[in-house]
Amino acid sequence: MDTQIEIQAMGERAVIASRALTSISARRKNVILQAMADELDARRADIKAANQQDMQNARQSGLNAAMLDRLELTDIRIAAMIKGVRNIAGQKDPVGSVISRWIRPNGLEILKTRVPIGVIGIIYEARPNVTADAAVLCFKSSNAVILRGGREAAQSNAAIVAALQAGGARKGMPADTVQLVSTTDRAAIQHLVQLEGLVDLIIPRGGEGLIRAVMQNARVPVIKHYRGVCHVYIDAEADPNMALAIVENAKCQRPGVCNAIEKLLIHETIAPNILPIIAARLAELNVTLRGDEAARAIVPDIMPATESDWTEEYLDLILAIAIVPSDDAAIAHINRYGSHHSDAIVSENAAARKKFCVAVDSAAVYANASTRFTDGSEFGMGAEIGISTDKIHARGPMGVEELTTYKFVVKGKGQVRE
Amino acid sequence: MDTQIEIQAMGERAVIASRALTSISARRKNVILQAMADELDARRADIKAANQQDMQNARQSGLNAAMLDRLELTDIRIAAMIKGVRNIAGQKDPVGSVISRWIRPNGLEILKTRVPIGVIGIIYEARPNVTADAAVLCFKSSNAVILRGGREAAQSNAAIVAALQAGGARKGMPADTVQLVSTTDRAAIQHLVQLEGLVDLIIPRGGEGLIRAVMQNARVPVIKHYRGVCHVYIDAEADPNMALAIVENAKCQRPGVCNAIEKLLIHETIAPNILPIIAARLAELNVTLRGDEAARAIVPDIMPATESDWTEEYLDLILAIAIVPSDDAAIAHINRYGSHHSDAIVSENAAARKKFCVAVDSAAVYANASTRFTDGSEFGMGAEIGISTDKIHARGPMGVEELTTYKFVVKGKGQVRE
Repeated sequence: MDTQIEIQAMGERAVIASRALTSISARRKNVILQAMADELDARRADIKAANQQDMQNARQSGLNAAMLDRLELTDIRIAAMIKGVRNIAGQKDPVGSVISRWIRPNGLEILKTRVPIGVIGIIYEARPNVTADAAVLCFKSSNAVILRGGREAAQSNAAIVAALQAGGARKGMPADTVQLVSTTDRAAIQHLVQLEGLVDLIIPRGGEGLIRAVMQNARVPVIKHYRGVCHVYIDAEADPNMALAIVENAKCQRPGVCNAIEKLLIHETIAPNILPIIAARLAELNVTLRGDEAARAIVPDIMPATESDWTEEYLDLILAIAIVPSDDAAIAHINRYGSHHSDAIVSENAAARKKFCVAVDSAAVYANASTRFTDGSEFGMGAEIGISTDKIHARGPMGVEELTTYKFVVKGKGQVRE
Repeated sequence: MDTQIEIQAMGERAVIASRALTSISARRKNVILQAMADELDARRADIKAANQQDMQNARQSGLNAAMLDRLELTDIRIAAMIKGVRNIAGQKDPVGSVISRWIRPNGLEILKTRVPIGVIGIIYEARPNVTADAAVLCFKSSNAVILRGGREAAQSNAAIVAALQAGGARKGMPADTVQLVSTTDRAAIQHLVQLEGLVDLIIPRGGEGLIRAVMQNARVPVIKHYRGVCHVYIDAEADPNMALAIVENAKCQRPGVCNAIEKLLIHETIAPNILPIIAARLAELNVTLRGDEAARAIVPDIMPATESDWTEEYLDLILAIAIVPSDDAAIAHINRYGSHHSDAIVSENAAARKKFCVAVDSAAVYANASTRFTDGSEFGMGAEIGISTDKIHARGPMGVEELTTYKFVVKGKGQVRE
């Protein structure tokens, strides 16, 4: 009950902050962001000491090496965090821009105007650098933010938020613009996602377990990133060298991320030529291959794939391969088994590329390029708060613009409705 | 359990339809829409007979006059329904348009492209004309739709959907593009709003009770329209004649709709001059006034308002009046008690108008015009599926464009990530 009261009070304070944020100019926000970066810079030692405490606790409670790596704030990571804040200060401000404007026959002028969403809750896991990223992206888009990080990073997060608050306050950031849930009570998440009328949007950043837990309880809108089950499809008329380069890059350049491919589809007419070359190259790169019957008939070394291989997100050096009889079959496979994240066709045939790009229902569809480009900075959008696999409001990389909504401003001279 | 299986199967069929819809051209969709209108026209007698049955059942079960009026399909209403379908055929097609396009330094071309959302569920109450409106708006935007209308209108809805399906099918509309939930089992709604992975968006259209019931169970995104607690604020520098005309229009022209005002705020310096005139005029129009102490000190006939008057949506000839000491107090009042729908300022002072339009957190903010203009057709957007009081994806009137989302189409020449 105490947790519920605490979260409710945070929501009420965030609403007050979000009202105050509407009168902060773009120039002032950038001054505040630079002051936040300065303060992080001045408190590097504090932040590192707090992180050392978290690391020590985490080691004692037996966190695995991968989790410890995510938790650790090295000098390089702290420097990158500070640089990230300064970069966001330099980005274009989306708030207040007029998306479209028209005049009605009765003389009413209608301006569809970009405005902040209001109060955003960010729920994340062990990585403390998400704290600074999420806070400054929300602030740049004039939203108040309530942060709920992983318990493992409690000290680190508190130190980072303290720096952001102190730096921001010095230059006039409204109180409670950036708040951190301090209780480690897991019920805090449940209360946060039920703050109808106070929290306008929840963005969970983390594994599927976290996101499902949020969805179980959510009463406010959630934009989520489930899984990245991404495909490359090699069409009958693909350039074999390009296909090999794209598959290698999309699978191996960083296999543990959401925009790496997990599946390879190959048109049956090109498979006998190209699959042996791809299989040999991927074997050199230590990729385990799993294939359907047709793939194994061409390259017998490939392990047999089971039905679950078509939906699994390995996040590892594993690739499932299927041979398809047509472009339509490839498209149907991707729409059925994929996660609507990022999928690519390799083809020299313009009609095939066009059909694929229209019919594949994913946030990002690629013609003759690697799926690894699905990323706010690779897209030229600047820093991202995450990648949406949802279909409403925002799809794919979400930058500051995707943290805004719009309102209609209607200017009249006394018009009334007939 | 049978209902659950039925709804699940409808969802699966809708997904198949939504895939097929991606290859239907804009021109073909309009041919199909005209065929739908033709078929409604040919079946006027059937539709009317079905509606007579619904009306008879409704009378027997004691529905009140207002409900019976909503349920009834007169010749005029059927003609308007048919005309509505033809109008939507004539509207601009949003699907496939390129929202923005840019080229990255590595040569990748990125096209942010408008695409359908996929499968949309519409849950509504007694009015059978919503059936045709919702179906054709979803189809025009290339979405498959699952309709769940009120039990009272079951026969009417079935007759309308049969006409739309038959007309559409004749011109190549994919099967299951438009489906109607035929069971009257209330559990159908619960199952429909939990079809994660099949239904992409739910739009409930109806009273607050329906919307709260949907939200209780929803596992898929919902865009909702709660209440219209709309305000007019008369600033110290308002033109009294304009203020009177706007208040009269916004309150009285159609008091039972969401964009009619329920509250009037008046700056304290102008209130002694303007309130007596407004109160006298509204009394002539049979409006009951409820006011705070300051309002009653000026016009003693005004009934006292209680705290709940500031949040209540009367949908009737009742108006609550508060006197405020400043523009800031008016803005704070509206943001606190309003429903973020439509709010207006009347003022000759440009700075006051600008401040109000920036700070009031509503879907539509008006300067010197009646709130009654918040409407898809008054905004020039064509027919609307509803008015959103949500803050993500769509705010205010939702037309066909708001029934779309986007994807990124990325065109390369073999680019891979460094």
